[in-house]
Amino acid sequence: MEITFELGYALDTFYFLICGALVMWMAAGFTMLEAGLVRAKNTTEILTKNVALYAVASIMYMICGYSIMYGGDDFSLFLSGITADGATGVEEPAGYAPSADFFFQVVFVATAMSIVSGAVAERMKLWAFLAFTVVLTGFIYPMEGSWTWGGEKVLGLFSLAELGFSDFAGSGIVHMAGASAALAGVLVLGARAGKYSKDGKANAIPGANLPLATLGTFILWVGWFGFNGGSVLATSSVENANSVAVVFMNTNMAAAGGLVSALLLARLMFGKADLTMALNGALAGLVAITAEPSTPTPLQATLFGALGGILVVLSILALDKVKIDDPVGAISVHGTVGFLGLMLVPITNEGAKFTGQLAGAFTIFIWVFVTSLLVWLALKAIMGIRVSEEEEYEGVDISECGLEAYPEFK
Amino acid sequence: MEITFELGYALDTFYFLICGALVMWMAAGFTMLEAGLVRAKNTTEILTKNVALYAVASIMYMICGYSIMYGGDDFSLFLSGITADGATGVEEPAGYAPSADFFFQVVFVATAMSIVSGAVAERMKLWAFLAFTVVLTGFIYPMEGSWTWGGEKVLGLFSLAELGFSDFAGSGIVHMAGASAALAGVLVLGARAGKYSKDGKANAIPGANLPLATLGTFILWVGWFGFNGGSVLATSSVENANSVAVVFMNTNMAAAGGLVSALLLARLMFGKADLTMALNGALAGLVAITAEPSTPTPLQATLFGALGGILVVLSILALDKVKIDDPVGAISVHGTVGFLGLMLVPITNEGAKFTGQLAGAFTIFIWVFVTSLLVWLALKAIMGIRVSEEEEYEGVDISECGLEAYPEFK
Amino acid sequence: MEITFELGYALDTFYFLICGALVMWMAAGFTMLEAGLVRAKNTTEILTKNVALYAVASIMYMICGYSIMYGGDDFSLFLSGITADGATGVEEPAGYAPSADFFFQVVFVATAMSIVSGAVAERMKLWAFLAFTVVLTGFIYPMEGSWTWGGEKVLGLFSLAELGFSDFAGSGIVHMAGASAALAGVLVLGARAGKYSKDGKANAIPGANLPLATLGTFILWVGWFGFNGGSVLATSSVENANSVAVVFMNTNMAAAGGLVSALLLARLMFGKADLTMALNGALAGLVAITAEPSTPTPLQATLFGALGGILVVLSILALDKVKIDDPVGAISVHGTVGFLGLMLVPITNEGAKFTGQLAGAFTIFIWVFVTSLLVWLALKAIMGIRVSEEEEYEGVDISECGLEAYPEFK
Repeated sequence: MEITFELGYALDTFYFLICGALVMWMAAGFTMLEAGLVRAKNTTEILTKNVALYAVASIMYMICGYSIMYGGDDFSLFLSGITADGATGVEEPAGYAPSADFFFQVVFVATAMSIVSGAVAERMKLWAFLAFTVVLTGFIYPMEGSWTWGGEKVLGLFSLAELGFSDFAGSGIVHMAGASAALAGVLVLGARAGKYSKDGKANAIPGANLPLATLGTFILWVGWFGFNGGSVLATSSVENANSVAVVFMNTNMAAAGGLVSALLLARLMFGKADLTMALNGALAGLVAITAEPSTPTPLQATLFGALGGILVVLSILALDKVKIDDPVGAISVHGTVGFLGLMLVPITNEGAKFTGQLAGAFTIFIWVFVTSLLVWLALKAIMGIRVSEEEEYEGVDISECGLEAYPEFK
Repeated sequence: MEITFELGYALDTFYFLICGALVMWMAAGFTMLEAGLVRAKNTTEILTKNVALYAVASIMYMICGYSIMYGGDDFSLFLSGITADGATGVEEPAGYAPSADFFFQVVFVATAMSIVSGAVAERMKLWAFLAFTVVLTGFIYPMEGSWTWGGEKVLGLFSLAELGFSDFAGSGIVHMAGASAALAGVLVLGARAGKYSKDGKANAIPGANLPLATLGTFILWVGWFGFNGGSVLATSSVENANSVAVVFMNTNMAAAGGLVSALLLARLMFGKADLTMALNGALAGLVAITAEPSTPTPLQATLFGALGGILVVLSILALDKVKIDDPVGAISVHGTVGFLGLMLVPITNEGAKFTGQLAGAFTIFIWVFVTSLLVWLALKAIMGIRVSEEEEYEGVDISECGLEAYPEFK
Repeated sequence: MEITFELGYALDTFYFLICGALVMWMAAGFTMLEAGLVRAKNTTEILTKNVALYAVASIMYMICGYSIMYGGDDFSLFLSGITADGATGVEEPAGYAPSADFFFQVVFVATAMSIVSGAVAERMKLWAFLAFTVVLTGFIYPMEGSWTWGGEKVLGLFSLAELGFSDFAGSGIVHMAGASAALAGVLVLGARAGKYSKDGKANAIPGANLPLATLGTFILWVGWFGFNGGSVLATSSVENANSVAVVFMNTNMAAAGGLVSALLLARLMFGKADLTMALNGALAGLVAITAEPSTPTPLQATLFGALGGILVVLSILALDKVKIDDPVGAISVHGTVGFLGLMLVPITNEGAKFTGQLAGAFTIFIWVFVTSLLVWLALKAIMGIRVSEEEEYEGVDISECGLEAYPEFK
């Protein structure tokens, strides 16, 4: 082989691996964010859920998810043999190590699942959650991914790409998908005890550890450089390198825009600098830019992020009005703003069409929501998904994990 | 283009982006460090200040800061148009993506501002702080940066570079600058209630969460590899790669030297292994090496760091003598030791002169201190910068943010 | 020089530095893990121990450790002169910056030492611990490293490599070595007061801050990509890039396997989803794959990790039976499973032999355990290694550091 080909292959592979490691790091971000926003008595369970879901997602995606999403007819990477020299049973990409591709993809499926864990916090049974994780990461997400990034026709019927659908790094494919599964879970599960008064008023249930929530947001912010930056899929030419650099810059600007707009809006509406809204604003900015971080100018990226920051505050308030109880705001951040992200694409990317974006959003939502709903209902029937009232009152840490998160602080 | 040029361009761009992401991560480090060193009742505000300053700094640097610092006559990047293909309106650097340059620079301005937030903690109004952030990151720092890294003459009068001034990664340009702005703020603001007794004795006010402070220090330590390592500005030749490697090695050794010397000195002076002094010692070692991490031997780097570790302990004690109340020691770490860092450069770098270093230090300090003082005084007159006595007593979290950081731990 | 050589050199150097930074980051992981698993009253000391050991390890390895391990006859890098252009006094490696090699190696020795700090937590004197750190990082580990990665004969007698010993990234050389030193320390030190009842029953002493422990595990997980991935030692060819990618993938899969198997086994044995066992399971998976992450398939990696996860739970229970008190489970994670990792190598790597692995494991354990035991006993005689009963009861934070970790939470 040409030495220049080898160098390009090596650089692209290394770039992929580092971006993948950054996305893996986002699992820690979700964990800290969610652990900071729940009450102390439910912290151990959410920690356990988050580390376990990451592990289960990795295993399920290896067993069948990756093959379903990218493997065409061959539905089991596990059976078809992932060989030690890095071949993965699917067609080898031209310019980088196949194992690096698997590594980068596997951390994405974990991200989708992490979104769910926050929304169902503080009242769900741990093992029911993990059972759902098996299905989402091994089947629901990979199917949806096969119709989008995988290039397959939706249920064999129509091609989203031909309709002009484009989702660069997954505002819809990852984030809105995760939020759709979460929404189905929350509807089946119901609100936390005490969240809504009989007169319909939503009661604030403050998180126990805001430094953790802030740390989680920073982890997600830095991890997102890998999430979006890696989605260019190659960096070893001037054109690709420029694209990756623009993506890093815009990802940062969108988060900044989202944080500032949410902070200002919360100040106007509530009279205070609400930290949790600011954090959700930053995350909303990140979600909003994820569907297309490579074509906006940095000013546009900032504004798109700011739009996300405003929308997330309004969405959180609206969901509380209709008594959809999402302790960490995940459905708003990843769902509502994920949809916004998809709709913003055609503004700067001529290859995308609004109708295609709508079709894609609709497809993702319907597929993930309906299948998730069926799985949640099945789990409810089989093993139950909600802890008892008494367990909820005492905290799920004791009943599910047998360990308190902060045994000495009270 | 030659394929080898493309590969070098791509490698340098990727190196820049990863180093930039590491520096962005330092924002999380400052946040955790400061959140760990303040009292529980003032934690939410310092978290909010830190995430918000990072966002504001990003936006202001995009709007005008970058153009002021590097753009010559063109004072608005925002208006001159940052285009989506990565062109930034300023002359294109030869060997890497312009957007990567912007991304790397923007995280530096946030670092300068992060230094301020710790020093003014526990008694400043949040919105006054953010107003100051706008001016520092959009004007004060970029002007100073234009005279140093930007290569412009100071107020059109004289060139620091011609005087033999050299500051590799910013002991003076970033760290001492941030500390100068912080000093002005602290002087206008005054000490925290209860910090100094009437007889002049300084009372220890312990931080609420030392694991967070330690985590913050580790984050800064690892982020500093990007801060100093990225300041080589290219890595795609043997010479540059060797230089980047030396910088990583020396950055680590200086931090180690600073930690050990501060730990030992604190043991000698106070009889205990004072963790907070050790952490500040590590940071001091990092600041001390930042002005020139590429020319010392690792042994010299360790000794320079150790000197920083000793100086920071003495400086913290000295500032308390003169009742300059800096809750986290930021003025000592970044200011006193930043000056030391500048003065150490000529020992190993023949291109730098002591007179030039003094001229640079003097210029940076006078400019940043005086302009910051004026801004702080103006803010004091316009909106007030200090919370009321009652608010300070109850904690700024409730009055400024409406949220407690640890509502269940007390 | 050829431009393609320069590019390869630059890429390999950058890859080494980034992997080294990730391993350095593991120091933060050990710190958070251990700080989360001890009681609040012993937290400041373990934080101090961990930051200080990292600094001491860096300095000792520069002074003599690196030369002992890789320098042949020249026993002092410090004296032979580390020059500013990156030459380190030892023979220059062909394809990357020598300083990058030093940087990558220095973070490994800190890892070995970090393992010790957890096992001896909650009752050891800080300065005795640091004295031990000097000897382990400056002499014990480098000697052992010279016989393995350094290629020297063991005490001049026989070559482990010739016996078919292979330890890719250090399941034995780093992890089991650290655990052997820890075991010697724990035996000399004795169990914590109250850990074992008179009837021999082990009493659970819950950690004070499980989010910290979880964060630490995630940090270690992401840092391990650098630990194992960097141990390929080069990435700039297709073959090496593929190998690095496989290592990243398998490292992730092994951790996932370990987490799931430990979680399930704990569920079967204790009836609850034990978070601390799950975390130790993930770490055990990582240790198990470290001796050979490049030859297994991802399925094998998952199963090897799962084996580690099961073994760690059983080992923790077994050590408690024989009253070896290891507050964080470090001896089980890094020692028992480190041995397992060595034994798994010949299954997928034809170049390794079971007899060679046994010889290597035996050599590492005997050398490190015996020399460590002598040092611990000497330190016990000279300065004492255990705090007084009263200090232990009140917490070592006050007696050793004079600072509480969480002064307001109680």
